[in-house]
Amino acid sequence: MSGTVTQTGIALQATQADAVEAIQDSILLSSSLWVNIALAGLSALLFVYMGRNVTDSRAKFIFAATLMIPLVSISSYTGLLSGLTVGFIEMPAGHALAGQEVMSQWGRYLTWALSTPMILLALGLLAKVDTPDLFTVIAADIGMCVTGLAAALVTSSYLLRWAFYVISCAFFLVVLYAILVEWPQDAAAAGTDEIFGTLRVLTVVLWLGYPIIWAVGVEGFALVQSVGITSWGYSALDIGAKYLFAFLLLRWVAANEGVVSGPSVTADAGTAATADDD
Amino acid sequence: MSGTVTQTGIALQATQADAVEAIQDSILLSSSLWVNIALAGLSALLFVYMGRNVTDSRAKFIFAATLMIPLVSISSYTGLLSGLTVGFIEMPAGHALAGQEVMSQWGRYLTWALSTPMILLALGLLAKVDTPDLFTVIAADIGMCVTGLAAALVTSSYLLRWAFYVISCAFFLVVLYAILVEWPQDAAAAGTDEIFGTLRVLTVVLWLGYPIIWAVGVEGFALVQSVGITSWGYSALDIGAKYLFAFLLLRWVAANEGVVSGPSVTADAGTAATADDD
Amino acid sequence: MSGTVTQTGIALQATQADAVEAIQDSILLSSSLWVNIALAGLSALLFVYMGRNVTDSRAKFIFAATLMIPLVSISSYTGLLSGLTVGFIEMPAGHALAGQEVMSQWGRYLTWALSTPMILLALGLLAKVDTPDLFTVIAADIGMCVTGLAAALVTSSYLLRWAFYVISCAFFLVVLYAILVEWPQDAAAAGTDEIFGTLRVLTVVLWLGYPIIWAVGVEGFALVQSVGITSWGYSALDIGAKYLFAFLLLRWVAANEGVVSGPSVTADAGTAATADDD
Repeated sequence: MSGTVTQTGIALQATQADAVEAIQDSILLSSSLWVNIALAGLSALLFVYMGRNVTDSRAKFIFAATLMIPLVSISSYTGLLSGLTVGFIEMPAGHALAGQEVMSQWGRYLTWALSTPMILLALGLLAKVDTPDLFTVIAADIGMCVTGLAAALVTSSYLLRWAFYVISCAFFLVVLYAILVEWPQDAAAAGTDEIFGTLRVLTVVLWLGYPIIWAVGVEGFALVQSVGITSWGYSALDIGAKYLFAFLLLRWVAANEGVVSGPSVTADAGTAATADDD
Repeated sequence: MSGTVTQTGIALQATQADAVEAIQDSILLSSSLWVNIALAGLSALLFVYMGRNVTDSRAKFIFAATLMIPLVSISSYTGLLSGLTVGFIEMPAGHALAGQEVMSQWGRYLTWALSTPMILLALGLLAKVDTPDLFTVIAADIGMCVTGLAAALVTSSYLLRWAFYVISCAFFLVVLYAILVEWPQDAAAAGTDEIFGTLRVLTVVLWLGYPIIWAVGVEGFALVQSVGITSWGYSALDIGAKYLFAFLLLRWVAANEGVVSGPSVTADAGTAATADDD
Repeated sequence: MSGTVTQTGIALQATQADAVEAIQDSILLSSSLWVNIALAGLSALLFVYMGRNVTDSRAKFIFAATLMIPLVSISSYTGLLSGLTVGFIEMPAGHALAGQEVMSQWGRYLTWALSTPMILLALGLLAKVDTPDLFTVIAADIGMCVTGLAAALVTSSYLLRWAFYVISCAFFLVVLYAILVEWPQDAAAAGTDEIFGTLRVLTVVLWLGYPIIWAVGVEGFALVQSVGITSWGYSALDIGAKYLFAFLLLRWVAANEGVVSGPSVTADAGTAATADDD
């Protein structure tokens, strides 16, 4: 019995140690992780500083929600650096690197399932969309991340890797539909359409980059076979889609406390119902 | 070091490959999975077609939310087909198949934690229940799925498998209480009680089938010892509880845009507070 | 192929069996788990009894939500007892027990991600905070639990274990800010500040105990090197933060149905907008 006591434990720990070694051996790879930890940390400090004079309770709340974005990001990159959320995947027949062990940073997909909902929450709050709508879009977003994780982990079939990729993109379409078609109307009604428009463009353009990198990078067609360059691709997108996004949002909120103030997102329809009293 | 590099990776990949082989060897088993992928895909296309003329924003939103149900289902069955969410469990002493390796489709329980909340969301939207109520019922529902997953994975004790089964049923009782006792009153107030009543009966009857299959099938008392028949049992229930449910809901919504229109679920109480203005 | 069929399965099952053996061999350890299952079971029965005469629909709902707390707790401790959510971690260089295998009850962190949101939901309902605020605080709370899980599982670096600990505490600060600064104002407006004040103190004091036990116990500085005593520490906190908390809350709700009745949490702002009509 004692011989098998910790077989799994040992194997898992071996993966962690090997992943750490592989990351430390590559300056390209490790820099792609460290730069995000540094920027996320600076962003968090900057956001606390930017919010020091905010008095409106709703504006304060948006600051607290947005502060979560760099916090989740630091967690995500620390997970990759520690090797905890990194694995080695043997690519199936049909893949350009078939039979080879490829490092998969699967933790990225997992933590996106927590960080991207915060970004959608921030956009939804700005546009004052109603709660069930927000809930559905966040569910689609989580579906997108989880099937992306599945696409990264499937090793039994090259075709099924791409099947998950297509499903993930289908969830993405639901998210895009909300951001591009539905929410702009809400934002116009809420008087926040200018900043919403800016952040929407930033989000749509950068989020489109993620599936492109997956397709081009080591996990997809492997046109780019460097794990370090693929990792830098994701890291660069994260910088724009997370810290720049949050900065633009909070700068606007700090300067427009009065606009975000007032009835919350969830009471939107209730307020509309009594609009003739105003 | 290099000898243990990918011990876990290899083992996980072996499980995937073995699961795929076992599934492909059994027509009964593989047909139970493929039929759902086909029906979920057709449902998704049909729902997009049915919603082509819907103009009301609230009705459009219910279409988007309901479209998620077949999308999650496709993800779930692709996960099973790829072997990613399938494992082999050695049954503990006391079980009818004690000491034998039994294929466990544990991915079903995991993906139910995402798909069943969408069904409850759709029901809650119809009945216009308030948000915290919906939140609690969905939390109970997730508790039900996660403890069902635990029941499937415990191999150390036959008794504890059933302990998790009983806990999962306790969470189910909270869900049933909401659907059968609380929500019908809300639906009556919202004027949607006819379609809500139909969908409620469909949901309650079919959802009761899942714990029965577990108890009778390979994971419980093993009165039915065929993995293929057990799998078909779940697959048949999924067809009714997911695609038929969604079809009936959307057909009604498309024909009754005016009824679902208006104040959202979350502003229900706010509207009630101003009811005397109407 | 057949030789590797269930390598992972066997390893996972070995961990379960070993964990069960280690738990059964230690009266201290097993009593720390059983006492919580017993108390959670009694609490659930007591709560159902206490709620037998409640008629207000909002009060009934708070009873249903609070009933989830002992249900999740029973699931959590059954997971630990079965060995399913327990593992053996080899501590990294720098740790007091470096190179030794330490039992990690990682399932605690995982189930806290479901149980602590229910506690925050109950507090938020009492204070009638608005939905996006509640959503953000619960997201921070889940971030706290997930990074706590990561801190427990990292074996590649002692420093990174503490990095995750610090990140988890940063999420905790967001939660503390909401409970201590924001929500008391909402509770005062809702007329529930007395009971909210009591539960807030109970929650803040006991929740501060968890990171202290982690730091002092086997997973942190290992000043206390007994897994049994560390486990009892968490178990004792759970008794106060979960069952006592829920009992005080429900006793108050049963005696004050009229106060909790009325517009829901989510329509708070909508109601405020029409306050001049009242």
